[in-house]
Amino acid sequence: MKVLVLNAGSSSMKFTIFAMGKEQVLAKGLVERVGTDRPNLIYKRHDGLEKELTPTGKNHVGALKSICKIMTDKKDGVINDLSEVQAIGHRVVHGGERFTRPALVTSNVKEAIRDCFALAPLHNPANLDGIEACEKTFDGIPNVAVFDTAFHQTMPPEAYLYAVPYNLYTKYGIRRYGFHGTSHNFVAIATGKFLGKPFEQLKLITCHLGNGCSMAAISGGTVLDTTMGMTPLEGLVMGTRCGDIDPAVVLRMVEIGMGRNQIDQILNKESGLLGVGGIGSSDMRDIIDAEKKGDQQALRARRMFTRRVVKYIGAYYALLGGADAIVFTGGVGEWSGYVRHKIGKRLGCFGIKIDAKKNDKFLGKCGEISTTDSKTKLIVMPTDEELMIARSVVTSLTHTSLPVDEG
Amino acid sequence: MKVLVLNAGSSSMKFTIFAMGKEQVLAKGLVERVGTDRPNLIYKRHDGLEKELTPTGKNHVGALKSICKIMTDKKDGVINDLSEVQAIGHRVVHGGERFTRPALVTSNVKEAIRDCFALAPLHNPANLDGIEACEKTFDGIPNVAVFDTAFHQTMPPEAYLYAVPYNLYTKYGIRRYGFHGTSHNFVAIATGKFLGKPFEQLKLITCHLGNGCSMAAISGGTVLDTTMGMTPLEGLVMGTRCGDIDPAVVLRMVEIGMGRNQIDQILNKESGLLGVGGIGSSDMRDIIDAEKKGDQQALRARRMFTRRVVKYIGAYYALLGGADAIVFTGGVGEWSGYVRHKIGKRLGCFGIKIDAKKNDKFLGKCGEISTTDSKTKLIVMPTDEELMIARSVVTSLTHTSLPVDEG
Repeated sequence: MKVLVLNAGSSSMKFTIFAMGKEQVLAKGLVERVGTDRPNLIYKRHDGLEKELTPTGKNHVGALKSICKIMTDKKDGVINDLSEVQAIGHRVVHGGERFTRPALVTSNVKEAIRDCFALAPLHNPANLDGIEACEKTFDGIPNVAVFDTAFHQTMPPEAYLYAVPYNLYTKYGIRRYGFHGTSHNFVAIATGKFLGKPFEQLKLITCHLGNGCSMAAISGGTVLDTTMGMTPLEGLVMGTRCGDIDPAVVLRMVEIGMGRNQIDQILNKESGLLGVGGIGSSDMRDIIDAEKKGDQQALRARRMFTRRVVKYIGAYYALLGGADAIVFTGGVGEWSGYVRHKIGKRLGCFGIKIDAKKNDKFLGKCGEISTTDSKTKLIVMPTDEELMIARSVVTSLTHTSLPVDEG
Repeated sequence: MKVLVLNAGSSSMKFTIFAMGKEQVLAKGLVERVGTDRPNLIYKRHDGLEKELTPTGKNHVGALKSICKIMTDKKDGVINDLSEVQAIGHRVVHGGERFTRPALVTSNVKEAIRDCFALAPLHNPANLDGIEACEKTFDGIPNVAVFDTAFHQTMPPEAYLYAVPYNLYTKYGIRRYGFHGTSHNFVAIATGKFLGKPFEQLKLITCHLGNGCSMAAISGGTVLDTTMGMTPLEGLVMGTRCGDIDPAVVLRMVEIGMGRNQIDQILNKESGLLGVGGIGSSDMRDIIDAEKKGDQQALRARRMFTRRVVKYIGAYYALLGGADAIVFTGGVGEWSGYVRHKIGKRLGCFGIKIDAKKNDKFLGKCGEISTTDSKTKLIVMPTDEELMIARSVVTSLTHTSLPVDEG
């Protein structure tokens, strides 16, 4: 069974095509600058072939057409005909409260995705564009929406409610949803396999540290809490997002004379490591390079980043009543032994010990980086959201007993 | 030495007069509805005498005059003459970054208090009114300003900075300041005495749970972190304040059509237990009564309250690398064995054990409420901000080597 996975953003369209029997990636790539005069397609085949092409159309439909063209190309492609694609999985950022699992796309599901536009104005419209482009291009092929929020829908009310007037929740959906759910779910399952125990029997703290960062406290297969909130702005210090701040800071910014969109731009795009690091970069590698060269502002930014993770590990350890493993994933979590070391060495009070040698060894690959006598294991677990989406597609289509549209 | 302590709010003026030799309260009380047509003075003498009077003036000067009149009254008073008052201590909410300790009031200090008006628009102007009323009424008597923010000024930059563009800090003072500092300082010192160790040698997590709520992580006599932020809105769930929320919630409220002041009002006055409890009360006693009668919304509100405290205990335990004691103070912290029980029983993963019998026993009085084998002690410690202010006044005036104006 061949499954295409699409992640349509406001100005990009990422794709991966899988042969699901062996969960093999046949090809992947992205169209960047969708919607501009200079869209660009980057294509990578499983055997190492790389191509760069110019899509003919400017919008998501044009981007998808160029993806289809290269996938079916006699010389460079990986399939003979589009009909070989048996299903398409779509990353959808916001599923609101309605979706607790992947959903076969119907007109009702599309309407529900539209209902969440206000909660994810940058993402959901583009995600829906991607779905509709596929409906036009792949006639009769099932589309499955996989939501970033779905895994977190198991949170109890005391975790997802904010202490604001209750009618803000009932009338406007103001609550914690959580994001990166597909990634947290993937690494939780993978960690279970790695430890030889179903993840439903484990207490896990999963740390997705990338450009966007979030953590989740997972117990009995359900999420007890997660750091991102109504939007992906809350929680950890990120590449360009502020994470937790006093809500009165936003009011102060209004007082200073800033408009809503300017504040949104500042907190989402100009904050985080970029805002406090002082080196004009949101990339943790650049921050660490500068820190190691003695840059005090970069040092402080890195400390703010790791400190916030340590605080949430403590908070989630308390909520879970202990933890079997703390899992690092995402670009920074998988590749930065330095960041993991700075976090791990502060967890001694929990009986947690990081093994420096193992920590140096497991970069971008799965492994245990704590000492054998550590009370809680520290695990590196590369995430694969595309594969998780492809698996969800297969499950959704083969387990027909599952309700695929929970409307 | 007799010291008058004043806490001038926007519509009230609280006072306590101490004889500092034995730290005895001679009299205390408050003028309520200052600035309205119906101001009212409540006066309580140490021997139980209580009086209610109507001040002649409407503003803070009028309120202070009526306080002076009853204090010096031949029959009901506690001093013969105003000249017996040797110094006056003033609670000032916001000292910005300038004040790390109490300050003898000079024109420079008053200017600095004025500079913080934007950061504490409801409190600092009233606090300054109180100081200026005293300057008029008590000619030549030293006034000492004691700041709610001062104790927290020992926080390291990685704790007090938000991950927003650095120029928002340098230009507008947008950072974490922390509040309730006088209370956290008082109970930290008192806990040190209780445990027979200088608090500078202890790792403490202090929980001030009242109508306003905040926590502090204290190590080596300095604050490592605190839950309130640039304003007293951030952190724990409070009586009417929301505490931590996604900053994007504020942006969403703007989108919905709410103005700055309306949002401020909702998050500060209509949120917290009042907003989510569903019983029209911000008082934890009412919430618990409703919870015990089976009210599901009140139960959820109480769970949100205690859960947030548990999360911060975990976070601060991690930051501190363990803790010698967790200290409960404030109206709820001192008096609600139920809330302490709900918090304490979730800390088993830290080797912390609450003793149910001791917990029931220590209501509004100092005591240890953990079992003898608890890894971290749980302590009830009544706070006394007025006494702390009076002590600070004495210290400021007698230790002339201390810089009292750090301008």
